[in-house]
Amino acid sequence: MTGEYWTLTKAHQALARRQLSARELAEAHLQQIHAHNSQLRAFLYINEDILQLAQEQDKKRAQGSFLPPLAGLPIAIKDLFHTKDMPTTYGSRYFAHHQPLADAPSVARLRELGALLIGKTHLHEFAFGTTSENIHYGHVRNPWNRSKIAGGSSGGSAVALASGMSLAALGTDTGGSVRIPAALTGTVGLKPSFGLISKEGVFPLAPSLDHVGPMTLSVDDAAWMLSLLTASSHEQAMRMSPDDHPYLPYSLPEPIRAGVIRPYFFDRCHPGVVDKITSLLRVLETRWLKRIDLSLSGLERVQEYQRVLITTEAYALHRQRLQENDSLFGDDVRDRLNSAKSLSAIEFLDALHFQKEFTAEMTEKFAIVDVLVMPTVPIPATDIGQSKVFVGSHEMPVRSLLNRNTQPFNFTGLPALSIPVGLLDGLPVGLQLVGPLGSERKLLSIGKFIEEAVQWNPLAPMHRA
Amino acid sequence: MTGEYWTLTKAHQALARRQLSARELAEAHLQQIHAHNSQLRAFLYINEDILQLAQEQDKKRAQGSFLPPLAGLPIAIKDLFHTKDMPTTYGSRYFAHHQPLADAPSVARLRELGALLIGKTHLHEFAFGTTSENIHYGHVRNPWNRSKIAGGSSGGSAVALASGMSLAALGTDTGGSVRIPAALTGTVGLKPSFGLISKEGVFPLAPSLDHVGPMTLSVDDAAWMLSLLTASSHEQAMRMSPDDHPYLPYSLPEPIRAGVIRPYFFDRCHPGVVDKITSLLRVLETRWLKRIDLSLSGLERVQEYQRVLITTEAYALHRQRLQENDSLFGDDVRDRLNSAKSLSAIEFLDALHFQKEFTAEMTEKFAIVDVLVMPTVPIPATDIGQSKVFVGSHEMPVRSLLNRNTQPFNFTGLPALSIPVGLLDGLPVGLQLVGPLGSERKLLSIGKFIEEAVQWNPLAPMHRA
Repeated sequence: MTGEYWTLTKAHQALARRQLSARELAEAHLQQIHAHNSQLRAFLYINEDILQLAQEQDKKRAQGSFLPPLAGLPIAIKDLFHTKDMPTTYGSRYFAHHQPLADAPSVARLRELGALLIGKTHLHEFAFGTTSENIHYGHVRNPWNRSKIAGGSSGGSAVALASGMSLAALGTDTGGSVRIPAALTGTVGLKPSFGLISKEGVFPLAPSLDHVGPMTLSVDDAAWMLSLLTASSHEQAMRMSPDDHPYLPYSLPEPIRAGVIRPYFFDRCHPGVVDKITSLLRVLETRWLKRIDLSLSGLERVQEYQRVLITTEAYALHRQRLQENDSLFGDDVRDRLNSAKSLSAIEFLDALHFQKEFTAEMTEKFAIVDVLVMPTVPIPATDIGQSKVFVGSHEMPVRSLLNRNTQPFNFTGLPALSIPVGLLDGLPVGLQLVGPLGSERKLLSIGKFIEEAVQWNPLAPMHRA
Repeated sequence: MTGEYWTLTKAHQALARRQLSARELAEAHLQQIHAHNSQLRAFLYINEDILQLAQEQDKKRAQGSFLPPLAGLPIAIKDLFHTKDMPTTYGSRYFAHHQPLADAPSVARLRELGALLIGKTHLHEFAFGTTSENIHYGHVRNPWNRSKIAGGSSGGSAVALASGMSLAALGTDTGGSVRIPAALTGTVGLKPSFGLISKEGVFPLAPSLDHVGPMTLSVDDAAWMLSLLTASSHEQAMRMSPDDHPYLPYSLPEPIRAGVIRPYFFDRCHPGVVDKITSLLRVLETRWLKRIDLSLSGLERVQEYQRVLITTEAYALHRQRLQENDSLFGDDVRDRLNSAKSLSAIEFLDALHFQKEFTAEMTEKFAIVDVLVMPTVPIPATDIGQSKVFVGSHEMPVRSLLNRNTQPFNFTGLPALSIPVGLLDGLPVGLQLVGPLGSERKLLSIGKFIEEAVQWNPLAPMHRA
């Protein structure tokens, strides 16, 4: 690797042109893991077997044989997905020695497409938290500043990307778990429309809010991964190259009408984050973007109602463990689960009713804008162990800030893409783009335009070659 | 009217052949109301204006003008449906003086089809009970024995039919409210598949369990009413006659495989009710029926989970009234509503999960049977005011027996038809037929076969001409 960084699609092309071998790519990524994983805690399991597979793929390529599209490309799997050849802990002590018998279908798809499944990435215990602090297996650390969190729950997946340990990763997102770590590590995270990617074989947190999403180093990579993961057949996926797949390019309208909902999405933000986003929007307004200010009532109630749904659904899934032996849970996760016990049936039904109404109201906004834009996370990464933070003169709990801007799109199921847009005090800031159900093509195209305008290098400085 | 009784379809034919005038029919039914309503409390509002309408229809018929299919036919409307020309109390003091501005679509349909909307029928307060005992407007009484309940919540509609006050009626059914009073009064009640008939303009009890259904004097009438109420356009409905509509006839397989689930559906029954049903089945087995004994786990849990859903949904609808002034509720309804406050979010979610699984398991049974058969209500009508009853050696609460066999089909949304099959100690007994979603044609055809075998007169003896 040179001063340039590899993305999934660029590495694919280099492999195809034999400018690079799978073996070299696997070695370079494993080397990064060996050098930094003990500190960063991105991986819970490292799959050295990929070296052998890479070598076989190189041999086939040398022979001119057909290779599947992801051949030679290291991809990391959040340790919430079942893998038949790697243990799967869910970040929990309960499953410290858990070895699934079969791959989750999304993992199986990547494997069939030739990906080098480089390991299982660390996460918040049972995916139930946004910091990836984990007392069982160590805290995930941010490669931009190792005293900081990487966000979560898919923290390890994001860190694997930002530190050159993997070219793409699978994450899950129930309240922001793909997008928060993507934003805090300067990588790309896509939470597609609810249900778009199969959740089979993935340990659930709250099934009505859970999503699987790709985490990548570029928007092109996210689009390609989405195409591969949603292809209706193996045969169809086998024919998809980064230049020829359903999710890019998309013909965009001009100007692109970008909706800004200042109250709520911008009002509990670090002022530097607001500056970063609004000055970017001003630059884009001189080109192809039209900013439209909107308001949306009810946003302030989303977090509480989402809490009702998520904790009740999660409690139902963990009930037996809580009743039989709750000592193996981390305190934060145990407390969060147990908080479900004080919620009433009426609150739960109210949450369902509000969810229906709110989703309809938010969806209506897309009659007048193409996309909503906002900071993915209102603040840059906080210190490991930090529980409160000042935004302006307000002291706020870190946890409720981290998922403040992401949860509304689990609540509504709308697709949301986080892309890096710059640095604040040396830490990445993410922009979130949101569209109506099924608008992934449009979101990714807009994301690509912005990515081109920003010219971001997603590798944390000390991990650059 | 002669010793024969009119049904909706028979009266339609007699009107078409000018053997009968609309005016005569309206007068005869109003006369029954005037003679008996003060005792039976079937109607809360009597619509004398139908005499004028009947006369106009007779005039048009004499002139050879086209008349819509329900012209001249008295139909009663449960006082839960909005009617633009009649007050609508929902059986509640809160709405004692409530006059809607528009008809519910189902009412509008009947009106457009020429029906004589003869009045608004009495019900359990807010439809939240199975006895139609109502402290605000008096208790509905059973025309077969006036010391007995008529069942509920659509008690007034059933009594109007069984006492010759109406030829058909609209009812609603959230836990059995069409089928229980049909069974206890010897009339026909159909709860169609969930969502089949519009619920717009009908005051809800628990929207996820509420159904609208026709109540009639014959299976033919129920089938015709269902066709008219579900026709996709006014034009289509206008062309439907009792001999030519989508819901009958249906070509039945032979033998008809009738599933019997003895545990639960037959095990808390008055022995006379069991005898009545099983001896009928034995007779039918000599002809076209094949009895198949089945079991289904989970039935014992349905009532408790349905209670969780119904009370929580009902509480959400009545919350403001409960908070502002709960003194206008009857004690039973107020207590039932307030019981929602002690239910937890976890119980609510458990109910939803169980509902999904149970519905799938019950639906699977229809791979091996055409229909499930069981007593609609395990006991004949109890005394007004009676709260407990012995079945065999068990003393049981009347209320939980009344809806024991009907609730599972609100919980699952499956269509269920109750038809009268005989008398026990001078009180009617109903048979319930249940099929998979969308099987109304089959259910009605089987119901018609059984009706022909039973030869029942649905008018209570003292109301026969």
